[in-house]
Amino acid sequence: MTTAPLLSPRTADAWGRLLLDCHTAGLPKGRFHEICERDDGYISAFDAVGFFEGPETWSALDRWAYGRIRGRVLDVGVGAGRFAVPFQRDGGEVVGLDVSGEALDVCARRGVTATILGTVDDVPADERFDTFLLLGKNLGLLENRTRGPELLRALAGLARPGARIVGTGVDPYRLDGALHGEYLAANRRQGRMSGQMRLRLRHRTLVTDWFDYLFMSVPELEEMTAGTGWSVRDVEWHGSDYGAVLTLTAPVGASR
Amino acid sequence: MTTAPLLSPRTADAWGRLLLDCHTAGLPKGRFHEICERDDGYISAFDAVGFFEGPETWSALDRWAYGRIRGRVLDVGVGAGRFAVPFQRDGGEVVGLDVSGEALDVCARRGVTATILGTVDDVPADERFDTFLLLGKNLGLLENRTRGPELLRALAGLARPGARIVGTGVDPYRLDGALHGEYLAANRRQGRMSGQMRLRLRHRTLVTDWFDYLFMSVPELEEMTAGTGWSVRDVEWHGSDYGAVLTLTAPVGASR
Repeated sequence: MTTAPLLSPRTADAWGRLLLDCHTAGLPKGRFHEICERDDGYISAFDAVGFFEGPETWSALDRWAYGRIRGRVLDVGVGAGRFAVPFQRDGGEVVGLDVSGEALDVCARRGVTATILGTVDDVPADERFDTFLLLGKNLGLLENRTRGPELLRALAGLARPGARIVGTGVDPYRLDGALHGEYLAANRRQGRMSGQMRLRLRHRTLVTDWFDYLFMSVPELEEMTAGTGWSVRDVEWHGSDYGAVLTLTAPVGASR
Repeated sequence: MTTAPLLSPRTADAWGRLLLDCHTAGLPKGRFHEICERDDGYISAFDAVGFFEGPETWSALDRWAYGRIRGRVLDVGVGAGRFAVPFQRDGGEVVGLDVSGEALDVCARRGVTATILGTVDDVPADERFDTFLLLGKNLGLLENRTRGPELLRALAGLARPGARIVGTGVDPYRLDGALHGEYLAANRRQGRMSGQMRLRLRHRTLVTDWFDYLFMSVPELEEMTAGTGWSVRDVEWHGSDYGAVLTLTAPVGASR
Protein backbone atom coordinates (compact mmCIF):
# COMPACT_ATOMS: atom_id res chain seq x y z
CA MET A 1 0.00 0.00 0.00
CA THR A 2 2.96 2.36 0.18
CA THR A 3 2.77 5.09 -2.43
CA ALA A 4 5.15 7.95 -2.98
CA PRO A 5 3.90 11.32 -1.78
CA LEU A 6 1.92 13.03 -4.53
CA LEU A 7 3.31 16.47 -3.85
CA SER A 8 5.38 18.22 -1.23
CA PRO A 9 4.87 21.19 1.03
CA ARG A 10 5.75 24.39 -0.80
CA THR A 11 8.43 26.68 0.60
CA ALA A 12 6.80 30.01 1.35
CA ASP A 13 6.00 32.42 4.16
CA ALA A 14 3.97 29.81 6.06
CA TRP A 15 4.24 31.85 9.24
CA GLY A 16 2.83 35.07 7.83
CA ARG A 17 0.13 33.21 5.94
CA LEU A 18 -0.92 31.44 9.12
CA LEU A 19 -1.30 34.77 10.93
CA LEU A 20 -3.15 36.29 7.98
CA ASP A 21 -5.52 33.32 7.61
CA CYS A 22 -6.25 33.25 11.34
CA HIS A 23 -6.89 37.00 11.39
CA THR A 24 -9.05 36.91 8.25
CA ALA A 25 -11.14 34.08 9.72
CA GLY A 26 -11.87 36.18 12.80
CA LEU A 27 -9.46 34.52 15.25
CA PRO A 28 -11.43 31.31 15.89
CA LYS A 29 -9.93 29.21 18.67
CA GLY A 30 -8.69 25.71 17.82
CA ARG A 31 -8.69 26.07 14.04
CA PHE A 32 -5.29 27.57 13.17
CA HIS A 33 -2.06 26.34 14.69
CA GLU A 34 1.58 27.22 14.47
CA ILE A 35 3.01 23.80 13.62
CA CYS A 36 6.73 23.74 14.33
CA GLU A 37 8.99 20.97 13.08
CA ARG A 38 12.51 20.45 14.40
CA ASP A 39 15.08 18.80 12.16
CA ASP A 40 15.06 15.61 14.23
CA GLY A 41 11.36 15.16 13.46
CA TYR A 42 10.15 16.58 16.78
CA ILE A 43 6.92 18.42 16.11
CA SER A 44 4.65 20.64 18.16
CA ALA A 45 1.60 22.83 17.70
CA PHE A 46 0.33 26.02 19.30
CA ASP A 47 -3.05 27.65 18.79
CA ALA A 48 -2.35 30.69 16.62
CA VAL A 49 -4.99 32.74 18.42
CA GLY A 50 -2.38 33.05 21.15
CA PHE A 51 -0.31 35.29 18.87
CA PHE A 52 -3.12 37.85 18.92
CA GLU A 53 -4.18 37.80 22.53
CA GLY A 54 -3.65 40.54 25.08
CA PRO A 55 -1.77 40.70 28.38
CA GLU A 56 -4.31 38.51 30.21
CA THR A 57 -3.00 35.42 28.38
CA TRP A 58 0.68 36.36 28.19
CA SER A 59 3.17 34.28 30.12
CA ALA A 60 4.16 35.72 33.48
CA LEU A 61 7.62 36.37 32.04
CA ASP A 62 6.33 38.25 29.02
CA ARG A 63 4.32 40.44 31.42
CA TRP A 64 7.41 40.94 33.59
CA ALA A 65 9.45 41.91 30.53
CA TYR A 66 6.73 44.14 29.05
CA GLY A 67 6.78 46.15 32.27
CA ARG A 68 10.47 46.90 31.67
CA ILE A 69 9.97 48.67 28.34
CA ARG A 70 11.20 52.27 28.23
CA GLY A 71 10.86 54.95 25.52
CA ARG A 72 10.80 54.28 21.79
CA VAL A 73 10.62 50.58 20.95
CA LEU A 74 11.80 48.33 18.13
CA ASP A 75 9.74 45.12 18.36
CA VAL A 76 12.07 42.53 16.82
CA GLY A 77 9.99 39.75 15.24
CA VAL A 78 6.73 41.63 15.79
CA GLY A 79 4.56 38.86 14.30
CA ALA A 80 0.87 39.70 14.58
CA GLY A 81 1.65 42.55 16.97
CA ARG A 82 0.83 40.72 20.16
CA PHE A 83 2.89 43.21 22.16
CA ALA A 84 3.04 46.14 19.74
CA VAL A 85 -0.75 46.52 19.45
CA PRO A 86 -1.44 47.06 23.16
CA PHE A 87 1.77 49.07 23.60
CA GLN A 88 0.78 51.51 20.87
CA ARG A 89 -2.81 51.62 22.10
CA ASP A 90 -1.47 52.68 25.49
CA GLY A 91 0.31 55.58 23.86
CA GLY A 92 3.72 54.01 23.32
CA GLU A 93 5.86 54.53 20.23
CA VAL A 94 6.78 51.24 18.58
CA VAL A 95 8.19 50.09 15.24
CA GLY A 96 7.43 46.49 14.29
CA LEU A 97 10.21 44.57 12.54
CA ASP A 98 9.59 41.26 10.80
CA VAL A 99 10.91 39.25 7.85
CA SER A 100 7.33 38.29 7.03
CA GLY A 101 5.43 40.68 4.79
CA GLU A 102 2.16 38.99 5.62
CA ALA A 103 2.80 39.33 9.35
CA LEU A 104 3.34 43.05 8.79
CA ASP A 105 0.12 43.13 6.77
CA VAL A 106 -1.66 41.71 9.83
CA CYS A 107 0.05 44.31 12.04
CA ALA A 108 -1.17 47.09 9.74
CA ARG A 109 -4.73 45.75 9.82
CA ARG A 110 -4.52 45.77 13.60
CA GLY A 111 -3.40 49.39 13.67
CA VAL A 112 0.37 49.18 14.06
CA THR A 113 1.39 52.31 12.19
CA ALA A 114 5.15 51.78 11.80
CA THR A 115 6.72 48.60 10.49
CA ILE A 116 9.93 47.59 8.74
CA LEU A 117 10.21 44.51 6.53
CA GLY A 118 13.42 42.59 7.09
CA THR A 119 15.95 41.86 9.80
CA VAL A 120 17.81 44.22 12.10
CA ASP A 121 20.22 44.76 9.20
CA ASP A 122 17.41 46.40 7.23
CA VAL A 123 16.56 49.05 9.80
CA PRO A 124 17.64 52.49 8.45
CA ALA A 125 20.94 53.45 10.06
CA ASP A 126 19.61 56.75 11.41
CA GLU A 127 16.81 55.14 13.43
CA ARG A 128 17.30 55.17 17.20
CA PHE A 129 15.49 53.26 19.93
CA ASP A 130 15.37 53.07 23.71
CA THR A 131 14.14 49.48 23.91
CA PHE A 132 14.67 46.48 21.68
CA LEU A 133 11.88 44.02 22.39
CA LEU A 134 12.38 40.27 21.95
CA LEU A 135 9.38 38.83 23.77
CA GLY A 136 7.62 35.53 23.15
CA LYS A 137 11.00 33.75 23.54
CA ASN A 138 12.40 35.88 20.72
CA LEU A 139 15.86 35.89 22.30
CA GLY A 140 15.83 32.79 20.07
CA LEU A 141 16.34 35.16 17.12
CA LEU A 142 19.99 35.38 18.19
CA GLU A 143 20.15 32.13 16.18
CA ASN A 144 23.69 30.88 16.78
CA ARG A 145 27.27 31.81 17.76
CA THR A 146 27.86 33.74 14.55
CA ARG A 147 24.61 35.57 14.13
CA GLY A 148 23.93 36.38 17.79
CA PRO A 149 26.86 38.81 18.31
CA GLU A 150 26.22 40.40 14.88
CA LEU A 151 22.63 41.05 15.81
CA LEU A 152 23.59 42.45 19.23
CA ARG A 153 26.15 44.78 17.65
CA ALA A 154 23.57 45.94 15.10
CA LEU A 155 21.16 46.75 17.93
CA ALA A 156 23.91 48.68 19.76
CA GLY A 157 24.33 50.75 16.60
CA LEU A 158 20.63 51.69 16.73
CA ALA A 159 20.62 52.39 20.45
CA ARG A 160 20.00 55.68 22.18
CA PRO A 161 22.09 56.29 25.29
CA GLY A 162 20.77 54.20 28.16
CA ALA A 163 18.98 51.77 25.80
CA ARG A 164 18.01 48.24 26.81
CA ILE A 165 17.15 44.91 25.31
CA VAL A 166 14.11 43.31 26.90
CA GLY A 167 13.52 39.70 25.99
CA THR A 168 12.39 36.25 26.99
CA GLY A 169 14.11 32.98 26.24
CA VAL A 170 14.54 29.35 27.17
CA ASP A 171 17.36 27.59 29.03
CA PRO A 172 17.76 24.34 27.06
CA TYR A 173 19.44 22.60 30.00
CA ARG A 174 16.25 22.98 32.03
CA LEU A 175 14.05 21.32 29.38
CA ASP A 176 12.81 17.74 29.83
CA GLY A 177 15.93 15.70 29.11
CA ALA A 178 13.92 12.68 28.01
CA LEU A 179 12.42 14.74 25.18
CA HIS A 180 15.30 17.01 24.26
CA GLY A 181 18.53 15.65 25.74
CA GLU A 182 19.44 13.60 22.70
CA TYR A 183 18.91 16.60 20.40
CA LEU A 184 21.09 18.84 22.56
CA ALA A 185 23.84 16.20 22.59
CA ALA A 186 23.63 15.77 18.80
CA ASN A 187 23.99 19.54 18.42
CA ARG A 188 27.12 19.55 20.55
CA ARG A 189 28.60 16.67 18.56
CA GLN A 190 28.12 18.81 15.43
CA GLY A 191 29.83 21.82 17.03
CA ARG A 192 26.57 23.67 17.35
CA MET A 193 25.31 25.29 20.54
CA SER A 194 23.29 22.82 22.61
CA GLY A 195 20.02 24.70 22.26
CA GLN A 196 20.46 25.72 18.64
CA MET A 197 17.06 24.52 17.47
CA ARG A 198 16.82 24.04 13.72
CA LEU A 199 13.17 24.63 12.96
CA ARG A 200 10.68 25.24 10.22
CA LEU A 201 7.05 26.28 10.46
CA ARG A 202 4.25 24.64 8.52
CA HIS A 203 0.77 25.85 7.65
CA ARG A 204 -1.49 23.83 5.38
CA THR A 205 0.69 22.98 2.36
CA LEU A 206 3.22 25.74 3.07
CA VAL A 207 6.52 25.44 4.87
CA THR A 208 9.21 27.96 5.74
CA ASP A 209 12.89 27.40 5.14
CA TRP A 210 14.80 25.87 8.01
CA PHE A 211 16.08 28.47 10.48
CA ASP A 212 18.02 28.46 13.73
CA TYR A 213 16.19 29.49 16.89
CA LEU A 214 18.50 29.64 19.86
CA PHE A 215 17.69 28.40 23.33
CA MET A 216 20.59 29.34 25.60
CA SER A 217 21.42 29.47 29.27
CA VAL A 218 22.01 32.83 30.90
CA PRO A 219 25.79 32.21 31.06
CA GLU A 220 25.70 31.46 27.32
CA LEU A 221 23.77 34.68 26.74
CA GLU A 222 26.32 36.60 28.80
CA GLU A 223 29.17 35.05 26.82
CA MET A 224 27.46 36.05 23.59
CA THR A 225 27.32 39.70 24.62
CA ALA A 226 31.13 39.94 24.82
CA GLY A 227 32.34 42.79 22.64
CA THR A 228 28.84 43.80 21.56
CA GLY A 229 28.33 46.66 23.98
CA TRP A 230 25.60 44.84 25.92
CA SER A 231 25.54 43.00 29.21
CA VAL A 232 22.88 41.05 31.07
CA ARG A 233 21.57 43.10 33.96
CA ASP A 234 18.36 41.56 35.26
CA VAL A 235 16.98 38.02 34.98
CA GLU A 236 13.64 36.55 36.08
CA TRP A 237 12.88 32.81 35.98
CA HIS A 238 9.82 30.66 35.38
CA GLY A 239 10.61 26.98 34.96
CA SER A 240 12.91 26.59 31.94
CA ASP A 241 12.03 30.07 30.66
CA TYR A 242 13.53 33.38 31.67
CA GLY A 243 13.13 37.05 31.06
CA ALA A 244 16.20 39.23 30.70
CA VAL A 245 17.07 42.89 30.53
CA LEU A 246 20.35 43.79 28.83
CA THR A 247 21.85 47.26 29.07
CA LEU A 248 24.65 49.07 27.30
CA THR A 249 27.89 48.65 29.18
CA ALA A 250 29.92 51.32 27.48
CA PRO A 251 29.65 53.89 24.74
CA VAL A 252 29.89 51.91 21.52
CA GLY A 253 31.30 52.98 18.24
CA ALA A 254 28.71 52.82 15.52
CA SER A 255 28.99 49.31 14.15
CA ARG A 256 27.45 50.24 10.83
CA MET B 1 23.62 27.22 6.56
CA THR B 2 21.68 24.22 5.24
CA THR B 3 22.44 21.10 7.22
CA ALA B 4 20.99 17.66 6.77
CA PRO B 5 18.44 16.63 9.36
CA LEU B 6 20.16 15.07 12.33
CA LEU B 7 17.57 12.39 12.86
CA SER B 8 14.12 11.49 11.60
CA PRO B 9 10.76 10.91 13.23
CA ARG B 10 10.50 7.34 14.44
CA THR B 11 7.69 5.11 13.17
CA ALA B 12 5.60 4.09 16.15
CA ASP B 13 2.15 4.33 17.65
CA ALA B 14 2.23 8.14 17.70
CA TRP B 15 -1.55 8.28 18.03
CA GLY B 16 -1.78 6.08 21.11
CA ARG B 17 1.22 7.75 22.71
CA LEU B 18 -0.37 11.17 22.17
CA LEU B 19 -3.54 10.04 23.95
CA LEU B 20 -1.54 8.44 26.75
CA ASP B 21 0.70 11.50 27.25
CA CYS B 22 -2.29 13.84 27.24
CA HIS B 23 -4.15 11.66 29.73
CA THR B 24 -1.11 11.22 31.98
CA ALA B 25 -0.53 14.97 32.03
CA GLY B 26 -4.09 15.54 33.28
CA LEU B 27 -5.68 16.69 29.99
CA PRO B 28 -4.23 20.21 29.88
CA LYS B 29 -5.75 22.31 27.09
CA GLY B 30 -3.45 23.60 24.36
CA ARG B 31 -0.45 21.38 25.15
CA PHE B 32 -1.04 18.16 23.20
CA HIS B 33 -2.21 18.12 19.61
CA GLU B 34 -3.09 15.51 17.06
CA ILE B 35 -0.85 16.65 14.21
CA CYS B 36 -2.03 15.14 10.95
CA GLU B 37 0.07 15.20 7.80
CA ARG B 38 -1.35 14.42 4.36
CA ASP B 39 0.95 13.05 1.69
CA ASP B 40 0.88 16.30 -0.29
CA GLY B 41 2.36 18.12 2.70
CA TYR B 42 -0.97 19.52 3.95
CA ILE B 43 -0.81 19.59 7.73
CA SER B 44 -3.30 20.32 10.47
CA ALA B 45 -3.54 20.16 14.24
CA PHE B 46 -6.32 19.48 16.72
CA ASP B 47 -6.19 19.86 20.49
CA ALA B 48 -6.04 16.30 21.82
CA VAL B 49 -8.18 17.21 24.83
CA GLY B 50 -11.07 17.07 22.37
CA PHE B 51 -10.64 13.30 22.17
CA PHE B 52 -11.53 13.03 25.85
CA GLU B 53 -14.37 15.49 26.16
CA GLY B 54 -18.00 14.67 26.75
CA PRO B 55 -21.21 15.29 24.74
CA GLU B 56 -21.20 19.03 25.46
CA THR B 57 -18.29 19.52 23.03
CA TRP B 58 -19.20 16.87 20.45
CA SER B 59 -20.16 18.00 16.99
CA ALA B 60 -23.89 18.25 16.37
CA LEU B 61 -23.58 15.28 14.04
CA ASP B 62 -21.81 13.09 16.58
CA ARG B 63 -24.61 13.89 19.03
CA TRP B 64 -27.20 13.08 16.36
CA ALA B 65 -25.47 9.78 15.62
CA TYR B 66 -24.93 8.89 19.29
CA GLY B 67 -28.68 9.17 19.80
CA ARG B 68 -29.17 6.44 17.20
CA ILE B 69 -27.20 3.76 19.04
CA ARG B 70 -29.18 0.60 19.91
CA GLY B 71 -28.23 -2.44 22.01
CA ARG B 72 -24.71 -3.89 22.29
CA VAL B 73 -22.07 -1.73 20.65
CA LEU B 74 -18.73 -2.24 18.93
CA ASP B 75 -16.95 1.11 18.95
CA VAL B 76 -14.69 0.88 15.88
CA GLY B 77 -11.61 3.04 16.44
CA VAL B 78 -12.48 3.73 20.05
CA GLY B 79 -9.45 5.97 20.66
CA ALA B 80 -9.51 7.45 24.16
CA GLY B 81 -13.12 6.35 24.61
CA ARG B 82 -14.71 9.69 23.84
CA PHE B 83 -18.03 7.95 23.09
CA ALA B 84 -17.54 4.63 24.88
CA VAL B 85 -16.85 6.18 28.29
CA PRO B 86 -20.15 8.11 28.59
CA PHE B 87 -22.07 5.30 26.89
CA GLN B 88 -20.87 2.73 29.40
CA ARG B 89 -21.36 5.15 32.28
CA ASP B 90 -24.99 5.50 31.20
CA GLY B 91 -25.40 1.74 31.47
CA GLY B 92 -24.69 0.78 27.86
CA GLU B 93 -22.72 -2.29 26.83
CA VAL B 94 -19.77 -1.40 24.59
CA VAL B 95 -16.62 -3.08 23.33
CA GLY B 96 -13.84 -0.72 22.23
CA LEU B 97 -11.83 -1.76 19.17
CA ASP B 98 -8.57 -0.10 18.23
CA VAL B 99 -5.28 -0.95 16.53
CA SER B 100 -3.49 1.15 19.16
CA GLY B 101 -2.54 -0.65 22.34
CA GLU B 102 -1.81 2.63 24.09
CA ALA B 103 -5.24 3.99 23.14
CA LEU B 104 -6.78 0.89 24.73
CA ASP B 105 -4.58 1.46 27.77
CA VAL B 106 -6.13 4.93 28.06
CA CYS B 107 -9.62 3.42 27.64
CA ALA B 108 -8.92 0.98 30.45
CA ARG B 109 -7.69 3.78 32.74
CA ARG B 110 -10.91 5.61 31.99
CA GLY B 111 -13.03 2.63 32.92
CA VAL B 112 -13.87 1.00 29.59
CA THR B 113 -14.08 -2.64 30.66
CA ALA B 114 -14.10 -4.44 27.29
CA THR B 115 -11.62 -3.79 24.51
CA ILE B 116 -10.15 -5.65 21.57
CA LEU B 117 -6.76 -4.84 20.08
CA GLY B 118 -6.77 -4.90 16.29
CA THR B 119 -9.08 -4.32 13.36
CA VAL B 120 -12.55 -5.69 12.68
CA ASP B 121 -10.79 -8.81 11.38
CA ASP B 122 -9.49 -9.49 14.88
CA VAL B 123 -12.90 -9.54 16.60
CA PRO B 124 -13.70 -13.14 17.69
CA ALA B 125 -16.11 -14.66 15.17
CA ASP B 126 -18.72 -15.51 17.79
CA GLU B 127 -19.12 -11.92 19.00
CA ARG B 128 -22.39 -10.23 18.01
CA PHE B 129 -23.40 -6.57 18.12
CA ASP B 130 -26.47 -4.43 17.53
CA THR B 131 -24.59 -1.26 16.65
CA PHE B 132 -21.25 -0.64 14.99
CA LEU B 133 -20.10 2.84 15.95
CA LEU B 134 -17.89 4.91 13.64
CA LEU B 135 -18.19 8.40 15.12
CA GLY B 136 -15.68 11.24 14.98
CA LYS B 137 -15.65 10.89 11.15
CA ASN B 138 -14.60 7.26 11.51
CA LEU B 139 -16.51 6.27 8.38
CA GLY B 140 -13.03 7.24 7.14
CA LEU B 141 -11.85 3.84 8.40
CA LEU B 142 -13.47 2.35 5.29
CA GLU B 143 -10.11 3.44 3.78
CA ASN B 144 -10.59 2.75 0.05
CA ARG B 145 -12.49 0.79 -2.63
CA THR B 146 -10.87 -2.50 -1.62
CA ARG B 147 -10.91 -2.26 2.13
CA GLY B 148 -14.32 -0.58 2.56
CA PRO B 149 -16.48 -3.47 1.29
CA GLU B 150 -14.31 -6.01 3.19
CA LEU B 151 -14.83 -4.10 6.40
CA LEU B 152 -18.58 -3.77 5.81
CA ARG B 153 -18.87 -7.50 5.12
CA ALA B 154 -16.91 -8.29 8.27
CA LEU B 155 -19.30 -6.12 10.29
CA ALA B 156 -22.29 -7.92 8.70
CA GLY B 157 -20.76 -11.18 9.90
CA LEU B 158 -20.74 -9.84 13.47
CA ALA B 159 -24.25 -8.39 13.27
CA ARG B 160 -27.28 -9.40 15.24
CA PRO B 161 -30.56 -9.30 13.33
CA GLY B 162 -31.67 -5.69 12.91
CA ALA B 163 -28.17 -4.34 13.51
CA ARG B 164 -27.02 -0.92 12.32
CA ILE B 165 -23.89 1.03 11.54
CA VAL B 166 -23.92 4.52 13.02
CA GLY B 167 -21.20 6.78 11.75
CA THR B 168 -20.07 10.26 10.76
CA GLY B 169 -18.05 11.19 7.71
CA VAL B 170 -17.02 13.93 5.32
CA ASP B 171 -18.13 14.64 1.75
CA PRO B 172 -14.87 15.63 0.02
CA TYR B 173 -16.73 17.46 -2.74
CA ARG B 174 -18.09 19.92 -0.18
CA LEU B 175 -14.65 20.81 1.21
CA ASP B 176 -12.97 24.11 0.31
CA GLY B 177 -11.84 23.51 -3.27
CA ALA B 178 -9.02 26.03 -2.98
CA LEU B 179 -7.46 23.95 -0.21
CA HIS B 180 -8.34 20.42 -1.29
CA GLY B 181 -9.41 20.45 -4.97
CA GLU B 182 -5.94 19.80 -6.30
CA TYR B 183 -5.48 16.85 -3.95
CA LEU B 184 -8.81 15.29 -4.96
CA ALA B 185 -7.91 15.68 -8.63
CA ALA B 186 -4.48 14.12 -8.09
CA ASN B 187 -6.15 11.18 -6.37
CA ARG B 188 -8.47 10.65 -9.33
CA ARG B 189 -5.54 10.80 -11.75
CA GLN B 190 -3.95 7.97 -9.75
CA GLY B 191 -7.12 5.87 -9.89
CA ARG B 192 -7.82 6.47 -6.21
CA MET B 193 -11.12 7.68 -4.81
CA SER B 194 -11.26 11.50 -4.72
CA GLY B 195 -11.40 11.71 -0.95
CA GLN B 196 -8.94 8.92 -0.23
CA MET B 197 -6.79 10.89 2.19
CA ARG B 198 -3.34 9.41 2.72
CA LEU B 199 -2.40 10.49 6.22
CA ARG B 200 -0.01 9.94 9.05
CA LEU B 201 -0.15 11.24 12.60
CA ARG B 202 2.78 12.80 14.40
CA HIS B 203 3.49 13.32 18.07
CA ARG B 204 6.79 14.68 19.28
CA THR B 205 9.42 12.56 17.47
CA LEU B 206 6.97 9.74 16.69
CA VAL B 207 5.07 9.18 13.47
CA THR B 208 2.58 6.53 12.40
CA ASP B 209 2.78 4.68 9.11
CA TRP B 210 0.84 6.23 6.25
CA PHE B 211 -2.77 5.08 6.14
CA ASP B 212 -5.84 5.77 4.01
CA TYR B 213 -8.71 7.66 5.61
CA LEU B 214 -11.68 7.91 3.28
CA PHE B 215 -13.81 10.97 2.77
CA MET B 216 -16.68 10.00 0.46
CA SER B 217 -19.98 11.39 -0.72
CA VAL B 218 -23.18 9.63 0.31
CA PRO B 219 -23.62 8.18 -3.20
CA GLU B 220 -20.06 6.81 -2.96
CA LEU B 221 -20.92 5.32 0.43
CA GLU B 222 -24.07 3.74 -1.02
CA GLU B 223 -22.08 2.31 -3.90
CA MET B 224 -19.59 0.83 -1.46
CA THR B 225 -22.32 -1.05 0.40
CA ALA B 226 -23.23 -3.09 -2.71
CA GLY B 227 -23.06 -6.80 -1.89
CA THR B 228 -22.08 -6.20 1.74
CA GLY B 229 -25.52 -6.65 3.29
CA TRP B 230 -25.76 -2.97 4.32
CA SER B 231 -27.57 0.01 2.90
CA VAL B 232 -27.69 3.69 3.84
CA ARG B 233 -30.95 4.47 5.56
CA ASP B 234 -30.72 7.84 7.24
CA VAL B 235 -28.44 10.82 6.61
CA GLU B 236 -28.07 14.12 8.46
CA TRP B 237 -25.94 17.01 7.17
CA HIS B 238 -23.81 19.73 8.70
CA GLY B 239 -21.69 21.62 6.19
CA SER B 240 -19.34 19.14 4.51
CA ASP B 241 -19.91 16.56 7.26
CA TYR B 242 -22.71 14.05 7.57
CA GLY B 243 -24.02 11.44 9.93
CA ALA B 244 -25.35 8.18 8.54
CA VAL B 245 -27.22 5.14 9.75
CA LEU B 246 -26.82 1.96 7.72
CA THR B 247 -29.04 -1.06 8.25
CA LEU B 248 -28.96 -4.67 7.10
CA THR B 249 -30.87 -5.07 3.88
CA ALA B 250 -31.12 -8.82 3.81
CA PRO B 251 -30.06 -11.86 5.79
CA VAL B 252 -26.38 -12.27 5.08
CA GLY B 253 -24.34 -15.41 4.92
CA ALA B 254 -21.56 -15.36 7.46
CA SER B 255 -18.64 -13.77 5.67
CA ARG B 256 -16.10 -15.37 7.96
